[in-house]
Amino acid sequence: MRLSRYFLPVLKENPAEAQIVSHRLMLRAGMIKQAQAGIYSWLPLGYKVLRNIETIVHEEQVRAGHIPMLMPTLQSADLWRESGRYDDYGEEMLRITDRHGRDMLYGPTNEELITDIFRSHVSSYRDLPLTLYHIQWKFRDEIRPRFGVMRGREFLMKDGYNFDVDKDSALHAYNRHMVSYLRTYERMGLQAIPMRADSGPIGGDNTHEFLVLAETGESEVFYDSAILDLKFGDRVVAYDSREECAEIVREWTTPYARTDETHDPALFDAIPEERRKTSRGIEVGQIFYFGTKYSEPLGATVQNAEGKAVPVHMGSHGIGVSRLLGAIIEASHDDKGIIWPEGVTPFHCGIVNLKQGDAEADTACETLYAALTAIGLEPLYDDRNERAGGKFATMDLIGLPWRITVGPRGLKNGVVELTSRRTGESEELTSELAVRKVAEIYGKTG
Amino acid sequence: MRLSRYFLPVLKENPAEAQIVSHRLMLRAGMIKQAQAGIYSWLPLGYKVLRNIETIVHEEQVRAGHIPMLMPTLQSADLWRESGRYDDYGEEMLRITDRHGRDMLYGPTNEELITDIFRSHVSSYRDLPLTLYHIQWKFRDEIRPRFGVMRGREFLMKDGYNFDVDKDSALHAYNRHMVSYLRTYERMGLQAIPMRADSGPIGGDNTHEFLVLAETGESEVFYDSAILDLKFGDRVVAYDSREECAEIVREWTTPYARTDETHDPALFDAIPEERRKTSRGIEVGQIFYFGTKYSEPLGATVQNAEGKAVPVHMGSHGIGVSRLLGAIIEASHDDKGIIWPEGVTPFHCGIVNLKQGDAEADTACETLYAALTAIGLEPLYDDRNERAGGKFATMDLIGLPWRITVGPRGLKNGVVELTSRRTGESEELTSELAVRKVAEIYGKTG
Repeated sequence: MRLSRYFLPVLKENPAEAQIVSHRLMLRAGMIKQAQAGIYSWLPLGYKVLRNIETIVHEEQVRAGHIPMLMPTLQSADLWRESGRYDDYGEEMLRITDRHGRDMLYGPTNEELITDIFRSHVSSYRDLPLTLYHIQWKFRDEIRPRFGVMRGREFLMKDGYNFDVDKDSALHAYNRHMVSYLRTYERMGLQAIPMRADSGPIGGDNTHEFLVLAETGESEVFYDSAILDLKFGDRVVAYDSREECAEIVREWTTPYARTDETHDPALFDAIPEERRKTSRGIEVGQIFYFGTKYSEPLGATVQNAEGKAVPVHMGSHGIGVSRLLGAIIEASHDDKGIIWPEGVTPFHCGIVNLKQGDAEADTACETLYAALTAIGLEPLYDDRNERAGGKFATMDLIGLPWRITVGPRGLKNGVVELTSRRTGESEELTSELAVRKVAEIYGKTG
Repeated sequence: MRLSRYFLPVLKENPAEAQIVSHRLMLRAGMIKQAQAGIYSWLPLGYKVLRNIETIVHEEQVRAGHIPMLMPTLQSADLWRESGRYDDYGEEMLRITDRHGRDMLYGPTNEELITDIFRSHVSSYRDLPLTLYHIQWKFRDEIRPRFGVMRGREFLMKDGYNFDVDKDSALHAYNRHMVSYLRTYERMGLQAIPMRADSGPIGGDNTHEFLVLAETGESEVFYDSAILDLKFGDRVVAYDSREECAEIVREWTTPYARTDETHDPALFDAIPEERRKTSRGIEVGQIFYFGTKYSEPLGATVQNAEGKAVPVHMGSHGIGVSRLLGAIIEASHDDKGIIWPEGVTPFHCGIVNLKQGDAEADTACETLYAALTAIGLEPLYDDRNERAGGKFATMDLIGLPWRITVGPRGLKNGVVELTSRRTGESEELTSELAVRKVAEIYGKTG
């Protein structure tokens, strides 16, 4: 993309309404614009990151054997009356009446609707196990929306639901989700720690939240620093294997890690003092096993192997897709702006032309642009007639992890400059080598 | 995907509520399930086609130089009061009140919101031309929703908005959209004819609808059959060239083609009789140039080259993404079920194992499955323990364009059977050749 043809409305001033750094940087980098309290338009740069995050979530869910589908944003109130949650949910539920006076609501979650789909179509244990998920906009009418996309009213969430014939099988689904989530967050450059959680209004026995450590987190967290050494890496998981999934879950849940809601000071104090850590965390996902809580009231039963009708065992598993943009920025930024992890960056690499209009510099930039594009990378070329300082400031603000700087002086010596946004380190090298290096970073063959 | 692990709830009976063939087939093929009147859940098979259509729309919009973003589903009533449409829109607009008593609405379209974004960030002709688009769920509270996704209440639409400094430039944007739409529909296997349209409530001078010929279409259409011979093909278009886009528009708008709203019997009668055709059509898109209709009331101005503030010239351009599934099925089906065009098919190819459990047949199917997957194709393997008749009926119903049938008798002779869903023709060939042939059809190197 050429910046002269893009829509990237960066702000010079810090917006007064933004209290936390991710909100401030998303506004300043032209990623979002507030449409009304807690509701945002995703401007092109923000939308690109949102799509990248969505793609990673989809890929990892499909890898785990979960099946994508899509439920609508608006739901009928009747289903929620059947489960008993219509009255319980309180004022956060956005209630709507259509032209015929029928009660609807903007879905804050989908347990009822997915259970209705299940009970209409599945009747035998032979069709299980089954995990269906979708990534769809939700609405919660927060009384005080704030912190940008971190606590919005209209937000994008992945929610998945497993259906299993018994508890053991449902707990395997629970473990499978934990494993797939660990891999998902790591691909986004995040260390999200699974912490034993409180089940809250959805109810259920087994539940973990995934928290990203950040000063601005809403929860106080307590953990054994040994957990920070765990890496998922590129291990290949047989998601059908109960043992293999259970072993990975054991690995990640053995070190102590809890939020203030489930904190147990006695257990915490048993950790060697140098590994005992307190911090704040941002919740970016949660998994639940809740058994037959919805299948019983909604009559979602299957015939088991003995021919007996039993209520299906369920769990629900969420990833806060739009919130993740905020969480990633909270965890990865500096004074100059955002620092995108390679896994989610909106453009792979920036190209800064120090002397737009200089024939040699322009040609060198165009050649770089074509070479990067040809190997499947997407560069953002700042081809505007601006001063170098302004171009650098924009690149630093929007946080592309790599920048190639092209200027007449370097070109005289046959070199361009490749700079890491994270370390600030630069090296001079030929254009060809710069392309090869960026290609390697992103695992492309250049 | 192995069918034994998929969620494909096909129906044996014709659902009573479905009046048209696409609605009936989408329900029977387990693509959608009604959540409430005019609101559908997209079951896995339906969701896959929806995503394929979305992807083609995105690719062609980006190819034309248009920039993707995303606006929220809920909008503030205030903006619509500013444009004067809040009261005009009538009962089709779903009006909502939040917990603080603020008036909101579920967006039926986005002229106001995009104009607000534009006026907040763009002030100079130097930032033009600019076309922003999104693919987002909309809501229109139809009094009598029907025909499945063809006339739903919650529906997915691509809507794009061009901003230009003057009328000439805006008309180029109009032409660019027409060209990109022609290419978009053709990639989906559709012949969508641009027909001069009535501007209706959005207003404006230049507007065309794109109609797919089908008996169940809501509009009566009149056309010169010469237009059916036009093919977009794989021509490469320089979308920045006003002349090139205008020439393609001329090509497609010269033969007579109008809906009943704009029909001119005198012009129609001048066509040679054998080319004079009357039919019915389904609207799958519309493009508008409406000048300064929204920029004036909303104060969206730019400084032109002479330094004078002028209201920006706009147009809006829509593709009915969810409706397209219905339109494609209306145009492409037979008594047995759907016939997907290769461009949008949910799976590239079906594999039917005639004798599940037979070691040789199972191995041959697994080998085929692995070979097709390895070259980037997605097969659907019917590995259920079902009779051949049932497996064929399911494959015909869900409409995969190609099917490979594997059975012990053929394997004795070293062959499998490759069958075209469209023609019903089969040929016997080795597994390797079958894979190569399917790969060629989809332009993959196998």
